[in-house]
Amino acid sequence: MSDTNEAARERLYHVNGSLVTPDEATVSVDDRGFRYGDGAFETLRAYGGTIFEAEAHFDRLERTCSTLGLDHGLTREDLSSRITETLAANDLEDAYVRLSITRGVQPGKLTPQPTVEPTVVIWVKPLARGGLEGTPVWEGPATLQTVKTRRIPDAALPAGAKTHNYLNGILARKELHDADEALVRDLDGYVAEGATSNVFFVDDAGLHTPTLEGSVLPGITREAVLELAGEASIPVHEGWYEPEDVRKADEVFLTNTTWELRPVERVDGLECEAPGPVTALLSRLFAERVERQCYRE
Amino acid sequence: MSDTNEAARERLYHVNGSLVTPDEATVSVDDRGFRYGDGAFETLRAYGGTIFEAEAHFDRLERTCSTLGLDHGLTREDLSSRITETLAANDLEDAYVRLSITRGVQPGKLTPQPTVEPTVVIWVKPLARGGLEGTPVWEGPATLQTVKTRRIPDAALPAGAKTHNYLNGILARKELHDADEALVRDLDGYVAEGATSNVFFVDDAGLHTPTLEGSVLPGITREAVLELAGEASIPVHEGWYEPEDVRKADEVFLTNTTWELRPVERVDGLECEAPGPVTALLSRLFAERVERQCYRE
Repeated sequence: MSDTNEAARERLYHVNGSLVTPDEATVSVDDRGFRYGDGAFETLRAYGGTIFEAEAHFDRLERTCSTLGLDHGLTREDLSSRITETLAANDLEDAYVRLSITRGVQPGKLTPQPTVEPTVVIWVKPLARGGLEGTPVWEGPATLQTVKTRRIPDAALPAGAKTHNYLNGILARKELHDADEALVRDLDGYVAEGATSNVFFVDDAGLHTPTLEGSVLPGITREAVLELAGEASIPVHEGWYEPEDVRKADEVFLTNTTWELRPVERVDGLECEAPGPVTALLSRLFAERVERQCYRE
Repeated sequence: MSDTNEAARERLYHVNGSLVTPDEATVSVDDRGFRYGDGAFETLRAYGGTIFEAEAHFDRLERTCSTLGLDHGLTREDLSSRITETLAANDLEDAYVRLSITRGVQPGKLTPQPTVEPTVVIWVKPLARGGLEGTPVWEGPATLQTVKTRRIPDAALPAGAKTHNYLNGILARKELHDADEALVRDLDGYVAEGATSNVFFVDDAGLHTPTLEGSVLPGITREAVLELAGEASIPVHEGWYEPEDVRKADEVFLTNTTWELRPVERVDGLECEAPGPVTALLSRLFAERVERQCYRE
């Protein structure tokens, strides 16, 4: 394809059942997603045209919608085929995918109504190939910085819900100076997670990550890494940690769907090995899993 | 005007500098207001074409934007004239007005960029006349119910900021059974506010409302009521209260810009006088203030 064609080619979005150009990819200002952030979302990743851990993502989406009492009435098959359609229309096999479902436009104000005409939006964006022959999407290891902004406690907004209310993470990111990701603590000072990632570290006792009993999003990549570590007989600990535990660790890495495993080279200015041997091993095992699940199908 | 004309007439919105029909009142799905609830808003009320307590609303909007680090670059004069234009285009003098400013579309993902092309939206809706000859917008006293959902603490999201992240209030409202408003507590169990209102109660010691030292939105009507009570020599207490203090009060009322003062007739099933004498007096003083500030100009 020539450069001219490339430039002329607009990315297509999937909005409420139709493939549309960026100009047409809009929602009403009355959409509750816009007015209140009243919506659920998932960030997914397509490898060779297949969504990795699709069922786990749909399970979490279902839990988020259930927390919000958002009965959108759409099946997984319907949502999956919309994603497939969007990837195909954009001629993409390796891609970032975001799927949002909001409560749409409703009469009245804040109190949600039971009858929902949901707004469903799918965004896609090209990514490099993943798996064993893949290249990471990030440009090098990350730096982490402990921030003052604390994670919203479950009692105010359940941490397991992945919603359009993302100001907590934005305020955390705003605090960063020359760092890539925020180390966000809960109200008691325990490490919860990054603004858009789960946090892992390695010391003599094995692999550690904050427990889901805290205000921690149950990351799909987090879960996959825990399984892979278990299979590789790496001792795994889900617990309560302080930033100091992360700062003095031998290895630290972050996980999310887009980054997969991203090594951390500095925590609050203190250096660590990036990637260390455990991070490198788990990254390799993760790539094998992607390869098996998506490219070899 | 005939019924036919009334029905045919669409409400106009003000979006990014232009008056538009409901169909055209849209934002991009890439707008950070939609993706993350990354925006500030104010609910205002026009009486006889004049915005009540306009400066106080603009002050709070400025504080919210400052908390979000959202440098929209618009003057109060500009925003005011957009509101005036919207009211005039809709032939409204007594109206609900909502003004939102979001961080608009930016490159990259969660981390906000300093250069902002804000999205500015104004909604209007007819209300009855206010002031001394006015009628309340609500249909009778409210019922209040203590809910399990707790107010987000300041350390996670400053309570003084009025943002598009409104799921906390939505979850609180979702818990209600046959009640109009949620009595929301902070994490320590102290009364904070309603989902969209401030809470006041009256007992032998005078007028009480939760202190702004807690996770409480500094309501513009709340502030006006405190001033009016002071002028009327009613003893005023801003403190830390438990739901039990509200339940056993002689009078309870709620305030917000649209409701003004709304008497409460039942708290968690327990009845109170609605309106009681102090509520009635303060409502009258509030109406006089509206009359003076807006209709007599």
